[in-house]
Amino acid sequence: MENLRLIYDGKTKRVYVKSDDMLLMEFKDVVTALDGAKVTHAAGKGVLNAALTAYFFKLLKSEGIDNHFIHYDGERSVIVKKLSMIPAEVVVRNYAYGGLVKRLPLLKPLTKLNTPTVEFHYKSDELHDPLILSEDLINAGLVSPHELEVIKEVSLKVNDVLLRRFDGCGLLLLDFKLEFGRDSDGKVLLADEICGDSVRVIDSDGRHLDKEVFRRGGSVDDLVKAYTLLACKLGIDVRGFQCT
Amino acid sequence: MENLRLIYDGKTKRVYVKSDDMLLMEFKDVVTALDGAKVTHAAGKGVLNAALTAYFFKLLKSEGIDNHFIHYDGERSVIVKKLSMIPAEVVVRNYAYGGLVKRLPLLKPLTKLNTPTVEFHYKSDELHDPLILSEDLINAGLVSPHELEVIKEVSLKVNDVLLRRFDGCGLLLLDFKLEFGRDSDGKVLLADEICGDSVRVIDSDGRHLDKEVFRRGGSVDDLVKAYTLLACKLGIDVRGFQCT
Repeated sequence: MENLRLIYDGKTKRVYVKSDDMLLMEFKDVVTALDGAKVTHAAGKGVLNAALTAYFFKLLKSEGIDNHFIHYDGERSVIVKKLSMIPAEVVVRNYAYGGLVKRLPLLKPLTKLNTPTVEFHYKSDELHDPLILSEDLINAGLVSPHELEVIKEVSLKVNDVLLRRFDGCGLLLLDFKLEFGRDSDGKVLLADEICGDSVRVIDSDGRHLDKEVFRRGGSVDDLVKAYTLLACKLGIDVRGFQCT
Repeated sequence: MENLRLIYDGKTKRVYVKSDDMLLMEFKDVVTALDGAKVTHAAGKGVLNAALTAYFFKLLKSEGIDNHFIHYDGERSVIVKKLSMIPAEVVVRNYAYGGLVKRLPLLKPLTKLNTPTVEFHYKSDELHDPLILSEDLINAGLVSPHELEVIKEVSLKVNDVLLRRFDGCGLLLLDFKLEFGRDSDGKVLLADEICGDSVRVIDSDGRHLDKEVFRRGGSVDDLVKAYTLLACKLGIDVRGFQCT
């Protein structure tokens, strides 16, 4: 990677220092399962997720939601603003699925929620990203009460934009995960990725166009096909992939 | 139990039908650990917890917090209003401890919280009473939005009363667990127990007067001594126990 300094090598992304205030996020061609214990090569996934992420962050900017996105190289790398990340995952849910159904099986999968919910998980592989309360974030000094309000408000705005966009191409957004960070002025900004790994989206036949395909035992090919279909439905032109 | 019909045989309590609208809760002489997998006989614990529960529910009534308590027999049984229980545990926390520290180890035990927090757990032995969001309760149809507000408000009022009462005898209330039910008119009422099993209280030396004693490897004798001391500090006269 053009001799950039690697500062983070995660399960699905590498992060390099691009300049004093910019980072380069490189999306790997891997798919993980079981909290990252199982890692499988998935040719093409990196480019697809980079393109999807670039697409969504640009869309959100155009809708007035500031975020870390700066530039997309058209391949597997996205240039972003350098932030100090807050170690929390923010999950926005419109329908019951995944973790929500696991912790409360009374809620059947795909039950529409009364209102979109925002939940927080503490980022910790060791603890398996446990659900925490929003108050826990404040008590642990991870965010200020004002920052928490900003994060909740932005998360729900992102949900509005994504719901509308997916609805526009016949897709239903079940839930998605966001992350936030602070820039050098201390401003909280939307960051990380929005892609097949971090959203749950189904078409009108209930087919998943997201990582659920792999979680349910689908092959890497099935997964890459689902992400390709997702990009195609959104009208994203991904280098090396053709929509049929 | 005077030929009453047993309707519930739990880990630490049995519940019998006393009349059309009354139940009898009998506190067992057992202490459980590891989600109830380990059950140990603890002579005297039943009477102590019944006396503590009766004391706190009477105190709460006198402070205007309506609840299911009707009568205490002076032994191990408490007569209560028959309610339809809501399958949730409500945990009120003033200091970081237990489950909060487990899910967010950044918070060191005994850290004072910025403000008391109310958290909810879905009652399920199989799932180990997982943390859920208050919104989950509404989405699953377990409570209405109005009922949720009542539960939160009553829980914080209970906290105020208990904090004051414990403070009055030199004790610090770390956290406690409540349960709620609906009466035949659909009114949500505070129910279940408030005793050594369901509160975490320390004295000025940091000594626990609660079940933590047993969780940390103390003997059944140590546990019964701690509960006796708790009752004595509160000025409760428990049949068969003497304060020194």
